[in-house]
Amino acid sequence: MNPQRKIVTASPENSETPLDNSAGWVTPNRLFFVRNHFEPPVATDAAAWTCTLDGLVARPAAWTFAELASLPQHTVFATVECAGNGRSFLRERAEGVQWGAGAIGNAEWSGVPLRTLLEPAGLAAGATEVVFEGADHGEEHGHAMNFSRSLPLAKALHPDTIIALRMNGEWLEPNHGAPMRLFVPGHYGVASVKWLRAMRVIDHAYPGFFQTTKYSVNRPGPGGKVRQPIGASAVKSAILQPPEGAQLGLGRHLVAGLAWAGEEKIAGVDVSSDGGRTWQAAQLKGIRQPYCWCQWETRWTVGAAGDYTLLARAHTETGQTQPLDYNPDNLGYIINLPIARNVSVAASRPAQVYFADAPPWNDFMEAYATENSRRPLDVELALTAGDGI
Amino acid sequence: MNPQRKIVTASPENSETPLDNSAGWVTPNRLFFVRNHFEPPVATDAAAWTCTLDGLVARPAAWTFAELASLPQHTVFATVECAGNGRSFLRERAEGVQWGAGAIGNAEWSGVPLRTLLEPAGLAAGATEVVFEGADHGEEHGHAMNFSRSLPLAKALHPDTIIALRMNGEWLEPNHGAPMRLFVPGHYGVASVKWLRAMRVIDHAYPGFFQTTKYSVNRPGPGGKVRQPIGASAVKSAILQPPEGAQLGLGRHLVAGLAWAGEEKIAGVDVSSDGGRTWQAAQLKGIRQPYCWCQWETRWTVGAAGDYTLLARAHTETGQTQPLDYNPDNLGYIINLPIARNVSVAASRPAQVYFADAPPWNDFMEAYATENSRRPLDVELALTAGDGI
Repeated sequence: MNPQRKIVTASPENSETPLDNSAGWVTPNRLFFVRNHFEPPVATDAAAWTCTLDGLVARPAAWTFAELASLPQHTVFATVECAGNGRSFLRERAEGVQWGAGAIGNAEWSGVPLRTLLEPAGLAAGATEVVFEGADHGEEHGHAMNFSRSLPLAKALHPDTIIALRMNGEWLEPNHGAPMRLFVPGHYGVASVKWLRAMRVIDHAYPGFFQTTKYSVNRPGPGGKVRQPIGASAVKSAILQPPEGAQLGLGRHLVAGLAWAGEEKIAGVDVSSDGGRTWQAAQLKGIRQPYCWCQWETRWTVGAAGDYTLLARAHTETGQTQPLDYNPDNLGYIINLPIARNVSVAASRPAQVYFADAPPWNDFMEAYATENSRRPLDVELALTAGDGI
Repeated sequence: MNPQRKIVTASPENSETPLDNSAGWVTPNRLFFVRNHFEPPVATDAAAWTCTLDGLVARPAAWTFAELASLPQHTVFATVECAGNGRSFLRERAEGVQWGAGAIGNAEWSGVPLRTLLEPAGLAAGATEVVFEGADHGEEHGHAMNFSRSLPLAKALHPDTIIALRMNGEWLEPNHGAPMRLFVPGHYGVASVKWLRAMRVIDHAYPGFFQTTKYSVNRPGPGGKVRQPIGASAVKSAILQPPEGAQLGLGRHLVAGLAWAGEEKIAGVDVSSDGGRTWQAAQLKGIRQPYCWCQWETRWTVGAAGDYTLLARAHTETGQTQPLDYNPDNLGYIINLPIARNVSVAASRPAQVYFADAPPWNDFMEAYATENSRRPLDVELALTAGDGI
């Protein structure tokens, strides 16, 4: 009843959001998945923590946490997914942390728009990228390094790209990058460098380990395949209900889940109960906006006992759709094919009656909401009573 | 740097959300204002906590917390305000807790739609209200009582009215009604009975203390003024920046805040810097939907030193507007006139340069967000460079 993050590796912590147990659109901070490459550095004096800016700028600068906290804050809701989320579902095992479906979460991020810091510094004409360096330090493939990654200048200057100080209104926690992190809405989590301590403006493709050796994919190029850093998140969905292996009765069942598409907005989700032969449109629910996952649900009526494979497939307003097969050029990242959810149905089990639709006579009563003037209600009830309610 | 709730009374706790320090749309649970009438009861065995249903129903019923948690959950974002919020700003002191502006917060509420419990119970034809009783117990005006309040049946059956188990994705905390509370989006907080333990369907106006003696207002009726329980929240706004008493320089300043309107959606906010003689429209920002506060901001250019009185005034899509004067028939509740924020401006102080608008050359770069294809960026930069950036 009090879910915790699901630990995948203990040191450093890599852990998943317990999606099946955290009903709602916002993921609480303590349940929000953690992806650490090295041990999290601890800010012993958060107020004095400093982030520097240098490289191709006219005026190098530095800001303490206290200074950033005193500037006007910008807020953005965004879903963040680890680029390796779902890796354990791949038929051919890919190298890396074997994530289930929960390396994803949705939160409200608040902080200082990066462009309000970059612009006054005077960007040089040839600038193309900004490199961000975290304070986390360790060894990869025999080389000591800090975690670092670059962003194209245009995305760095986007008004929603911020140095985040808060997550869901709370100051960042150590595992989420306290006291400050880059936050890049719509991109895979690797872009949002935690424990941010330095920014450098450059004029070339940054050859950092975490965007050349790791977190990169093969894409068609002029002379064949070209290795590219991953960037914006791809369209994807997840089924949350019913749970994997559920044992259901005949009747109507709720099939519900989430869908997201990086910088784009979800336009629809289709659900199949026969392993992908036929699909039916689900209903989108609640808040639906760019960057963020949206909730969806549909009712599935099943009249025959047997084993069923449920699939969900999302598409966006620009026509981006989840592929039905995994692209091996994604090299263990961007795993956005529909993941099967298997359930069994038996006639001997009771149907889940509480999933039934509410009777339609409620709909016209929903408009009634003025401040406690009760007489109209009596009339409405008189019209609808005697109906077995 | 680590704000806490502002305590107004210590026992039982009544405390405010530190609005000036909690940037963002969602209010974190630990900062979310608390309004307790009696000491909060503590659920020693939350899973076994039971809520009963009786009265004018064919099938009385009861549900444990564990049972409710196993049902499909519905999520709704809503701003909740105490009906006495802002009472300390009234020129004539009104009885009751002397709230500042912070008896308000915005959160994601998740739980079981009440109608999925009420309908299968078989509501009688004459039913008009549902009474909700909390487990909190104490004395008021010499009478021992539990906190209790009723809701018109139509609002009780609204699909967004829920028995809430979670707040911002976390299980409820004791001060917020753990393990279960009624949650009535769009109504003043008093409607959302905490520590819910009993529901009774009735066919008359419930004469409970907290809707006849307290939490009621005078309204015109057939034979003069009629006392009515308060219900839906009225339209209202708050200025969060600049702070009260701010000392500013000449130049452009950010004026920003929040606006909300119960079950309605905010259509606009006007801001005055001359105590209400002239008004200018502010810009609405971020998420805007029924039940919820929305963020707004505007730039205020001031060219002369002096003392200024800032006011904000919100209106809704149906034309509801904040009144400029307090209605004494509201009896110390529904305090929704604009609250003055006084600032002083002196030529000798530096302007707040970090409030300046970003240069327009960023706007056409915002569309650039495809996955790390960097060449178009170089062209765009060439067009805009040499401009002193």
